[in-house]
Amino acid sequence: MRAVLKYGGSSVADIKKIQAIADYIVNFKEICDEIVVVASAMGKTTDFLIKMAKDTSENPDQRELDSLLATGEQQTVALLSMAINSKGKKAVSLTGYQAEIKTMGVHTKSKIESIGTEKIENYLKKGYIVIVAGFQGINEKGDITTLGRGGSDTSAVALAASLKCQCRIYTDVDGIYNVDPRIYSKAKLLKEISYEEMMEMSNLGAGVMETRAVEIGKKFDIPIFVGKTLSETGGTYIMNRSTALEEKLVTGISIAKDILITTILNIPYSSEKIAEIFTAVDNYGLNINMITQNILRDGTTEISFSCQASEKYLLNQVIKRVEEIFPEADIEYREGLGMISVIGVGMINNSGIAGRFFSALSKAGVNFYQVTTSEISISCSIDRGMIEQAVNAAAEEFCL
Amino acid sequence: MRAVLKYGGSSVADIKKIQAIADYIVNFKEICDEIVVVASAMGKTTDFLIKMAKDTSENPDQRELDSLLATGEQQTVALLSMAINSKGKKAVSLTGYQAEIKTMGVHTKSKIESIGTEKIENYLKKGYIVIVAGFQGINEKGDITTLGRGGSDTSAVALAASLKCQCRIYTDVDGIYNVDPRIYSKAKLLKEISYEEMMEMSNLGAGVMETRAVEIGKKFDIPIFVGKTLSETGGTYIMNRSTALEEKLVTGISIAKDILITTILNIPYSSEKIAEIFTAVDNYGLNINMITQNILRDGTTEISFSCQASEKYLLNQVIKRVEEIFPEADIEYREGLGMISVIGVGMINNSGIAGRFFSALSKAGVNFYQVTTSEISISCSIDRGMIEQAVNAAAEEFCL
Repeated sequence: MRAVLKYGGSSVADIKKIQAIADYIVNFKEICDEIVVVASAMGKTTDFLIKMAKDTSENPDQRELDSLLATGEQQTVALLSMAINSKGKKAVSLTGYQAEIKTMGVHTKSKIESIGTEKIENYLKKGYIVIVAGFQGINEKGDITTLGRGGSDTSAVALAASLKCQCRIYTDVDGIYNVDPRIYSKAKLLKEISYEEMMEMSNLGAGVMETRAVEIGKKFDIPIFVGKTLSETGGTYIMNRSTALEEKLVTGISIAKDILITTILNIPYSSEKIAEIFTAVDNYGLNINMITQNILRDGTTEISFSCQASEKYLLNQVIKRVEEIFPEADIEYREGLGMISVIGVGMINNSGIAGRFFSALSKAGVNFYQVTTSEISISCSIDRGMIEQAVNAAAEEFCL
Repeated sequence: MRAVLKYGGSSVADIKKIQAIADYIVNFKEICDEIVVVASAMGKTTDFLIKMAKDTSENPDQRELDSLLATGEQQTVALLSMAINSKGKKAVSLTGYQAEIKTMGVHTKSKIESIGTEKIENYLKKGYIVIVAGFQGINEKGDITTLGRGGSDTSAVALAASLKCQCRIYTDVDGIYNVDPRIYSKAKLLKEISYEEMMEMSNLGAGVMETRAVEIGKKFDIPIFVGKTLSETGGTYIMNRSTALEEKLVTGISIAKDILITTILNIPYSSEKIAEIFTAVDNYGLNINMITQNILRDGTTEISFSCQASEKYLLNQVIKRVEEIFPEADIEYREGLGMISVIGVGMINNSGIAGRFFSALSKAGVNFYQVTTSEISISCSIDRGMIEQAVNAAAEEFCL
């Protein structure tokens, strides 16, 4: 058997935890003869490094920031490999470039282009446990890059895809719940969830795993297990829809707590120029969720989109570009919002979900503003203070 | 003009110091258009990483230790590059492998085999200040390696040799003194010293620079300036003998404070087997200074050598090997010793220095034990408590 195991920062926060994980892996080797481990930086290391960078420069050079941040994971994997070696199993650590994780795109938000697995396969053949630094890679210029938010999950699933094996993501939660259990006490742990549902959950704020990682899992049909570090029970398999599907209408509810809606008003309709806005969004790496566009009676166009309030510094750069493209535009912001989404592959073949969802919200006294839908989800922005009421109302309505 | 500038750990111990060095380099760029900087890990970072490794494993895997330690320098160079970039000059940091510093030999004590300069030359041509992580490289397997003690100095001089330019080592001392100024208050700062003299000084305990770095300087005739960080005055040039030479008989006095002499007794003479002993010394990386060998009247051989007391753990491994080679050997240790050496290229053409040196010691009441000489130095072991008297006596005798 072969598996990629991934441990996040809180699972490797100190030497004691690294030792415990080393013990777990040494035991796991008895039942799984080929193990690749992906680890994140220890605990608050990345935050500490970012603080050092900010102390050095208001606007740190992004190439250098990547090189600085990549040291965090390099330290963890070297220590974890030492720990395993000292317990009598052969282990070897690899940085992103040593593992030939080739990336493309901009610094601090690079994407994995390919992984050369020859070196890893050789080590596995020789019986080594291979420990790969998550979150990092190398670009075509030979510069060190990082993968941005959720990067280590992405590294792990991409490695599993390249090595054609399952991926086991160990974290500090039991698995994937149908609703955030901190908000809805009756939330249930899911045994299985489809890639599509998980992607909607991730995208819409579930926070357990990044969409990118799930996307890769779906593309290469890699089963992803998400479970609690060192726990033998619980956990959720993210897997192919045809395998996972129990045709529930609504599988889960996802929320985002602090979103900001930007509306661009009073611009002439021009598909070309509007495309330029979203090119700017991509270029600056701003993550946006809900997009709506209306063409008004006076012939002007109105575009709204939502993003995390914490990414306002990226939004500001995008808006500067918008003002270049449309000097006549008016820009309005709406802050203090949250977002609630109901998600389920069952929606594809069922109508009426939107009506039931909106009625439930309305009965609970929750106003909803911008609304967007996908094949398997419906999302709407609501006042931040109403998130709990909204979650309860939706969970009751769809019997979660 | 082109130069390699090297900053040690105490010069880059915190962000404020990194900023100050960035300012210095930005100014230096006005008079020197091609600058390569080599930096060590910040302050106590390496010690901290070693402690983490020791907490993880009693006997950390050496390959992993190198990968762990290399993060220290990678952090410094990324931060220094950020600082320079934010001051409006273009800078780029390179790790050992990015700078193509190829090494050979064992982990934690690797030696530089070659440096591929194409990437650095390209950056210099484009006006970048290139910041290279000291102390590290990459071996033929693609593993990260470190260069051991004085590794960053070695990186700097090797880079200067490859880039055919001067090397400026900035440190926390003013330069090279003829005697350790902490012991002899009348010590004088040398403006110049030959490679040969500096190598003897380094080897014999002067502590400012490692022999390996000076050796490379000599081999490629690279002038090495040693001066105080951020200071505009003082400093010593280590340079070619024919250039530097002021025919002083004795240029300097060097001391080692805590040495240990090991004597191997009662062994048959066998050049082959004795060579094996020193092969073991090399393999375990034990640094030894004075070696004496006597063949006694009864036909047995007696070998003595000295090392730093702090390297006793390496010595113990060597001795285990000695006991395999010569099961009949008796081993004696003499601890609590120091060593004093007088050094000067002038000695080559002058006799009588040994006599004057020993008389001076003797008059000052200093007993001397093992004695070794090179072309340009005379060293002897003395009681540790007598170091100050010995230095004073020798300095007076040779008018330093």
